Parts: sequence; structure tokens; C-alpha cells
Amino acid sequence: MSNYSNREFSEFEKDVFYDVIFSRRDVRQNFIVKKIEDNTLLRILKAAHHAPSVGFSQPWNFILIKNRTIRERIKESFLKERIRSIDLLNDEERQKKYLDLKLEGILESDINICVTYDHKRFGPFVIGRMTIKDAGIYSVCCAIQNLWLASRVEGIGVGWVSILNNEEIVKTLNLPDDVKPIAYLCLGYVEQFNDSPDLEKKNWLNRLSLKDVIFFERWDDKINDNWKNLQYLLS
Amino acid sequence: MSNYSNREFSEFEKDVFYDVIFSRRDVRQNFIVKKIEDNTLLRILKAAHHAPSVGFSQPWNFILIKNRTIRERIKESFLKERIRSIDLLNDEERQKKYLDLKLEGILESDINICVTYDHKRFGPFVIGRMTIKDAGIYSVCCAIQNLWLASRVEGIGVGWVSILNNEEIVKTLNLPDDVKPIAYLCLGYVEQFNDSPDLEKKNWLNRLSLKDVIFFERWDDKINDNWKNLQYLLS
Repeated sequence: MSNYSNREFSEFEKDVFYDVIFSRRDVRQNFIVKKIEDNTLLRILKAAHHAPSVGFSQPWNFILIKNRTIRERIKESFLKERIRSIDLLNDEERQKKYLDLKLEGILESDINICVTYDHKRFGPFVIGRMTIKDAGIYSVCCAIQNLWLASRVEGIGVGWVSILNNEEIVKTLNLPDDVKPIAYLCLGYVEQFNDSPDLEKKNWLNRLSLKDVIFFERWDDKINDNWKNLQYLLS
Repeated sequence: MSNYSNREFSEFEKDVFYDVIFSRRDVRQNFIVKKIEDNTLLRILKAAHHAPSVGFSQPWNFILIKNRTIRERIKESFLKERIRSIDLLNDEERQKKYLDLKLEGILESDINICVTYDHKRFGPFVIGRMTIKDAGIYSVCCAIQNLWLASRVEGIGVGWVSILNNEEIVKTLNLPDDVKPIAYLCLGYVEQFNDSPDLEKKNWLNRLSLKDVIFFERWDDKINDNWKNLQYLLS
């Protein structure tokens, strides 16, 4: 194993990393029938497990799911919640567009992974979590993003299904009271990764420009002497 | 820009990516006096902005902070909350250890970034957030992890300070009612990145083995016919 403390990345290596970032997609279709090898899955899970965590609490678990019956129950929950969601859209045009969207690949993907948060792990005193209560959940999300990027580098698509009822997930996967499901993920090889997010492609929403999400020194401050050059680069 | 849909990563490129994952650290010390160039910062922020988000809602903002007065106010909040935390540790040995830990680099780092969550963005109907209420916050955390990894690839350390009072952050940065601070980050070049997390090095907690955080099909299931080979690889 390399000596990480001195690891520097060349311009070429930086480009490789940014290619992973920009080519990662939330995948809900075009899964192909191809098994994910166990060694590949282990590399992905190891990357997830090396996420940062508040007070080094590592509060995540990964439930790996192949079982068809379990997946069918989760899919049922999706179908129920999807219909409930349609009712919340009052605009008919929007409803139609919503119905056209393919929003999950629970059964077509090779495996499903439920990522959970265990707030009792190493607790009750966890450094940094006494002040920011949800920091443990934030850690789990960082692990999910590591998993997502590692999957992309391995050529595997990931779709995060959040049109689900958490109570159904708890029951189906037998989660204890202290454990909260954070993500339900579908993993599998795909025909190809799209060049842009599905919801952008289908004109559901547009990508914001970077300058729209950046402020200087305080909320809403778009012009600040400390940041003149950056403002110029953003404009 | 490369064609992302067909981007495949070679074995060498995979190793580069995993090196980023495993060499990333939560940095609270050894910051050096060296300015982060604006172009570098932009690459990092662009990586963050390309995180996945529920319903493509992109609910994040990045407040870039150099101002000394603001940083001093945040540091004051840290100092207050740190003392409050000590009182929560009843074990004297543990208290001593806690006091020895360097837990933030608010003033020594080159810049601070507060990452926030705006639940009104593109709302109220956001796909996937009608069922999982906190999914927007999860998206912000994915963006933070992108930012963290991109910083590492650029040779820049990031420390997430969560011993803070969120109300103080809201007041100091002038956040509106609908906006929630998720992370307060300190960024700067460092002498070196440690080989392992500070809290592991100082024997505060150990890293769990990967097999401890993996279940098969259901919670607590460690032995399952579907997963025999993976179990063997993990053991």
C-alpha cells in the first residue's frame, strides 16, 4: 500500500478524478444482465467504509440484497408512493411528465444495497455529535457518495430510490428501532451512462450555474472585495 | 470535454481514484501559509456542484469565508461548545484525552466554507423528497464529500468542524429562516496528510473491520447462501 501522507496527484491524475465526478450518474434504466463480481463489490464497499465520520463513529451498515421476494416488496412500496406523489402535483402537464419518468431499477439491477445509520454506535458520547445532532447521518451520506463514485470507476451504475416508505423498509429488512434507513440503492452494469442527468435531459429542471450557488463571506453577498478575482472567473 | 457516457477507467485509473479515497483525511492541524488559487477553488466547487441531488434540486450553497472577524466569532462558538462537551464526558481519563485533541483549524486554514441547505429551492414538489423528507439534506452531504475528495486531489486539507452552535452560524452568516447550515469546513494546504485518522492514531476509537458493517439480505444476517463467496472474502 502506498504511503498516503505524501501522495500527490499529477495533472493527469487530477483529470482522472474529475472524470469520475462528472461522469457519475443517478441510474434508473439501461441496466444489463451482468453479475457484479464479489471482489469488485468489496472494493466499492471498502471505499464507502473509508468515508469521514463524525468523531470517527463509522455509524453505517450496508445490507446487500439479492433476494427476489425482498426486492418485490420494496418495489411495491415504490409503486404505492409514486401514485401518492402524483396526487401532490396539481399541474396536469407536470403529472404527465412525471409519469413518463423511469425512477427506479429495483428488480432490473444486479443488487440492491440499503445503507443505514446506527446512532448507538460508539455512543452516546460521539465527538462533534453532541452539538450537531444529525452529524452521524451526514457521515452516512458521505459514505454513500464514496460508494457511488467507486461504482462509477468500476463501470457500475447506481440509482438512489427515494420514492419509498421508510417504515416499509424497516419492516422488510428487519431493522431495529435504533437504526434508520438512509438510502436504498440499486447497483448494476449499464449499457451506457448518460451524458447528463435524466431530469435535466427531460427538461424537468435545469442545472444551476455555479455562480448561483456561491456567496462571499455572508448569505446573499455576491460582491465582496475579498473575492474580486473569483467573481470575475465566475462571471 | 470528454464523452462521459463511454468513459471507462483502466486499472491504473481505478488505483488513482482509490488513492484519493484512502488518502483523504479530516484535517485540523498542520495547515501551512499558502494561498489556495482561485482556479483551484473553482475546480473544487464545481466538483461539489456536480454531486447527485434528490429530484435534481441542487439545494446547496457555498459561503466562502476569508473575513477574520467572522472566523473569530465562529471560533468563539467552538470554544464555548467544546467546554460544554467536556462536561458530558464523565470519565476523567476520557476528558483529558479529549482536551488533548486538536479539533479545528478555523483561523489557521486559508479559507472557511459554510455549506447550507435551502429546502425551498425548486420546491415544494421535489421528486423523491415528498416521501423521504430529509433527502435534500442527504444531497448536500454528497456535495460535501465531492468537495472533500476534490480538495485532496488538489493537495488541500479539509476539516469539518461540528463542535459549533448552529444558531451562532445562522446569526453570523446572516442565513435566512429557510436555510440550514450543514457543514462548516476549513480548507488549506497542509505540511502532510496523516496516514490514518487522528482519532484512530490517538486511540480514541478504532476502525471497524469491513465485515462488521455488512449484512446480507436483512439486518443482522451474517450468513446467507446468496453471499457465500463474499462472506469468505470478508473473513
